Amino acid sequence: MQALPKRVEVVEMGPRDGFQMEHRWIPTEVKIEVVNALARTGLPIIQVTSFVHPKAVPQLRDAEQVMAGIERLPGVIYEALVPNMRGAERAIAARADKVNLMLSVTDSHSLANANRTTDQALRELEPVVRLCQDRGVPATGGMATALGCPFEGFPPAERLIWVVERYVGLGLGEIGVADTAGMANPVLVHDRLSRLRDRFPDVHFSLHLHDTRRMATANVLAALQVGIDRFDGAVGGLGGCPYAPGATGNITTEDMVHMLHEMGIETGVDLDALIAIARRLPEIVGHPVESCLVRAGKSRDVIGRRKQGQDKVGAA
Amino acid sequence: MQALPKRVEVVEMGPRDGFQMEHRWIPTEVKIEVVNALARTGLPIIQVTSFVHPKAVPQLRDAEQVMAGIERLPGVIYEALVPNMRGAERAIAARADKVNLMLSVTDSHSLANANRTTDQALRELEPVVRLCQDRGVPATGGMATALGCPFEGFPPAERLIWVVERYVGLGLGEIGVADTAGMANPVLVHDRLSRLRDRFPDVHFSLHLHDTRRMATANVLAALQVGIDRFDGAVGGLGGCPYAPGATGNITTEDMVHMLHEMGIETGVDLDALIAIARRLPEIVGHPVESCLVRAGKSRDVIGRRKQGQDKVGAA
Repeated sequence: MQALPKRVEVVEMGPRDGFQMEHRWIPTEVKIEVVNALARTGLPIIQVTSFVHPKAVPQLRDAEQVMAGIERLPGVIYEALVPNMRGAERAIAARADKVNLMLSVTDSHSLANANRTTDQALRELEPVVRLCQDRGVPATGGMATALGCPFEGFPPAERLIWVVERYVGLGLGEIGVADTAGMANPVLVHDRLSRLRDRFPDVHFSLHLHDTRRMATANVLAALQVGIDRFDGAVGGLGGCPYAPGATGNITTEDMVHMLHEMGIETGVDLDALIAIARRLPEIVGHPVESCLVRAGKSRDVIGRRKQGQDKVGAA
Repeated sequence: MQALPKRVEVVEMGPRDGFQMEHRWIPTEVKIEVVNALARTGLPIIQVTSFVHPKAVPQLRDAEQVMAGIERLPGVIYEALVPNMRGAERAIAARADKVNLMLSVTDSHSLANANRTTDQALRELEPVVRLCQDRGVPATGGMATALGCPFEGFPPAERLIWVVERYVGLGLGEIGVADTAGMANPVLVHDRLSRLRDRFPDVHFSLHLHDTRRMATANVLAALQVGIDRFDGAVGGLGGCPYAPGATGNITTEDMVHMLHEMGIETGVDLDALIAIARRLPEIVGHPVESCLVRAGKSRDVIGRRKQGQDKVGAA
């Protein structure tokens, strides 16, 4: 197999991209406890919350209180999603270590989601990036629908290059490529990411996957083969909407970390501690979560533990 | 990305590896109907049943009746699992187009599962293979636990080579490598399959995966990169035991076929027809099944269909 990165950074999105989809209110102190537990597993970056308007995402209306209440472990980056100038001001005031800006690569999704075209969104991000730069807060640029848009299909590589060029022009050096709707396949991921890497060798790209159609771990492998070394995930595969069949969450962090470890790739994450958090999630969110590791345990944990004789004749 | 096979053969295991795990009796005529529907999707090989002792797998005690009742579409191979001489005689009498022999690569699993070592199992298969050869019925050799054994861990490549040499010595040219317990990762799959392919260039290897730890589609990608062009799957991800949390089924055929098609790899399978069968399964087996495609639809189906405004601000 082609050379793979020896180490990968896993960005935990559960408290933001996961919790924002939950209809049942998660008390602020529970959110704080989950973020603290996640930080103690060794995850290097945690997206803690989103500074959106409280009416847009009521679940995250306690963004300031969560940011104020969490421990700040040295070495852990506590990141926040920021949709606009007002959000950036709030995130910086709340001492976010990093802000994650976001736009949709396709106009139709951008219009449906944020009532502006991609070009308008990029222009409106200009003063936001300047503010972050003035205040010394690093920013990453997100590219929703980059690997599949439910309205337009698969954006051509030129469209992604155009957005990255604009982001780079604003001074951003870290860019997240997202398969927002879980539509991407490994050939597409390999193609788009290798083109972006070749065109922008100085940009640090990360990959944001949803496992809607069971291609997410295959897409991780394809991206690793391009040299991508930063991946978003959500503990328990949070992020699907329990009331919307068809919607599916982020790639499950513990399942991804397990695969990376089994492949000999370091993450610095204490997988057992992460699984312990995933195990508590159903009680917190009020519905089952999508976690193979909770259900089956690590590959290496089952060895020797299985009871004799429980397999059926001919089972393969 | 490395060159991938242009066409892949998908072997449907649902009626055997899936149904054998179901506790609730599935009426013979329903089994026949499912096999017939699967054959009409264009699946080239269907493992219809297993000729084991009725007491070992009561669900498949109607093996003869199912084989006698199914349509025989031209071009479709109706295969049966056969554990021993008696099973081979029954399968041949029932006009199986092909028989699938099986053993465990690790002694401890072989002893637990079949009460004999791997070497003993190989010796006992010798007259079985001879019978098939005499009767002109092609046989494939299965290698359970080849990519992970719950007792012994990951068998070394030398052990796999030893088993394949013995199978080849018996005259078999088609061999199925199985990740019986869903423990394998893409690096292991790539390593073991590339060694086997290099050592046995004339053997046609197939891959049998269980998605226990969400590595199955990544393992498909790793195997495609080695040139593997035949994969087992089960419609609806059947094969997990609904009463044993932790047990998980075969890789879901429709999810795998969807990924292959999205990657530009042909299978000859009518995916919509396959999804329609998966959609009926919960009623047949009496519990939900594991099918992303049933839940979310094909990537290309959602394009343009999504209602405007249903995304949340900042969702990525």
